[in-house]
Amino acid sequence: MADDNRTPVTVIGLGAMGRALAGALLDNGHPTTVWNRSIDKAKRLAVRGATVANTVEEAIAASPVVVVCVLDYAVVREILGPLSGSLAGRTLVNLTNGTPKQARETAEWATGYGADYLDGGIMAVPVMIGRPEALILYSGSPGAFGLHERTLGALGTATYLNADAGHASLYDLALLAAMYGMFGGFYQAAAMVGSEKVPAAEFAPMVVSWLNAMTVALPTVAEAMDTGAGADDDSNLQMQAVSFANILSASREQGISTELLEPMQALLNRAIAAQRGGADTPSLIGMLRTDPVSAG
Amino acid sequence: MADDNRTPVTVIGLGAMGRALAGALLDNGHPTTVWNRSIDKAKRLAVRGATVANTVEEAIAASPVVVVCVLDYAVVREILGPLSGSLAGRTLVNLTNGTPKQARETAEWATGYGADYLDGGIMAVPVMIGRPEALILYSGSPGAFGLHERTLGALGTATYLNADAGHASLYDLALLAAMYGMFGGFYQAAAMVGSEKVPAAEFAPMVVSWLNAMTVALPTVAEAMDTGAGADDDSNLQMQAVSFANILSASREQGISTELLEPMQALLNRAIAAQRGGADTPSLIGMLRTDPVSAG
Repeated sequence: MADDNRTPVTVIGLGAMGRALAGALLDNGHPTTVWNRSIDKAKRLAVRGATVANTVEEAIAASPVVVVCVLDYAVVREILGPLSGSLAGRTLVNLTNGTPKQARETAEWATGYGADYLDGGIMAVPVMIGRPEALILYSGSPGAFGLHERTLGALGTATYLNADAGHASLYDLALLAAMYGMFGGFYQAAAMVGSEKVPAAEFAPMVVSWLNAMTVALPTVAEAMDTGAGADDDSNLQMQAVSFANILSASREQGISTELLEPMQALLNRAIAAQRGGADTPSLIGMLRTDPVSAG
Repeated sequence: MADDNRTPVTVIGLGAMGRALAGALLDNGHPTTVWNRSIDKAKRLAVRGATVANTVEEAIAASPVVVVCVLDYAVVREILGPLSGSLAGRTLVNLTNGTPKQARETAEWATGYGADYLDGGIMAVPVMIGRPEALILYSGSPGAFGLHERTLGALGTATYLNADAGHASLYDLALLAAMYGMFGGFYQAAAMVGSEKVPAAEFAPMVVSWLNAMTVALPTVAEAMDTGAGADDDSNLQMQAVSFANILSASREQGISTELLEPMQALLNRAIAAQRGGADTPSLIGMLRTDPVSAG
């Protein structure tokens, strides 16, 4: 039920995530206007109380806060580009997944037309939206975040990073990189024990408790990365290289591809060859720095 | 102080890990005999009450339980090979890091000479040894494990897998693979935010809480892997490929190498092209299965 004290919000893009966002706003009493290229998806939300806009222009005009969540930034510009002028005085909250560079460019474009701009990174799957465990990172206009923090809180736990519109996307993608690394390691591990007919579900609790124990080490590793301090014997890369080679040998023996492991082995070996900072674990991060590429 | 009720144990190999193992046995009152190729490291343990053997033969003769923890299996065979006969009637506990194949071969060799054989995988760094958080996986002779479970408990939490001597090593290496995946993801993530001068230590708590939230999903993913059941919309690989490409683009823009990310992108793309099981996350594990390689 719409509540007169709540800020009206427009949601553009009604994929699984957009529908979840609109649903959370409706659940929190926000007068909610929705628009999607194909209208079928909008109808499901109409039943729940959403106003279905006939045009994008009508959708933008309906609310001071316009949330956009589409496939990529090209689609954002395709949909909103022709209507730039109508964004003036509104807050554009772009939750589309993209790169920091795209976020900065979009911030510049939107503010150029008199809009306040917030870029967001959703660290959750659609089913989590509206719950506190759905972390949503924001960066861009601090004023807009302050003004709409409560509204954004309807979508999940809203965390503001800073005024650089690119930071939400950078943190978002960095956290996804960390997640994919962890998932890749899990696929490898499950495939390895699976080669001896151990069900992944039987093995999973052991991996989860092991990984949770290992994440405890990350803040210490991070500190050593920042200070450039050497690590102790325990993380000696030469020793690590021996056991890492065993992971590859065992995978090969068991008929499991080593493709996910090879780049880390190459990185370890490069660090040992270069003997940077005594070749300890924190020195590995330095090996990942290259020259920035300007192409998007 | 040695306790007459405790089983005498010999520790062969006094690197950082071997010293920690011998120290934990001494702390628990086990009469402990140690041997190392260079005697200097043994002397430090003598001060704590260990008996320093002059020869490997003397070390083996001193105890019914012989723990060996050296660099690799080649060193195990080099040290123990000439003394095979003296192992008869003893339990050889091999905590050296190696492959399942090496563990099985060593089990066959040791039992051929009348020894009981346990192979172990230490899921801990030396400083953790002797504490409950030091997980040590064992496989091999069930009788020997039953007989010496309390003694092995002095080293950490002793977990018996099964009679196949290769399983402790397989699980050990699989868990390490999972850990390196997670660490690699963290290095990438820290390098990405570091490119905007965000200290890794400032970013680490967010990564830790994010990864802990994500590990919760692993048992469900594991179950889907086992049953071959399709996943829902949320893990659609096509959507994942879009955000994965953004991680690579953002890394390049920020001057961070994509070498750790590329194989996972290739795996995602292969799964999408093959459309196995609708190309959902659990189908990725099947893509890692190859033909076993017989060379060690």
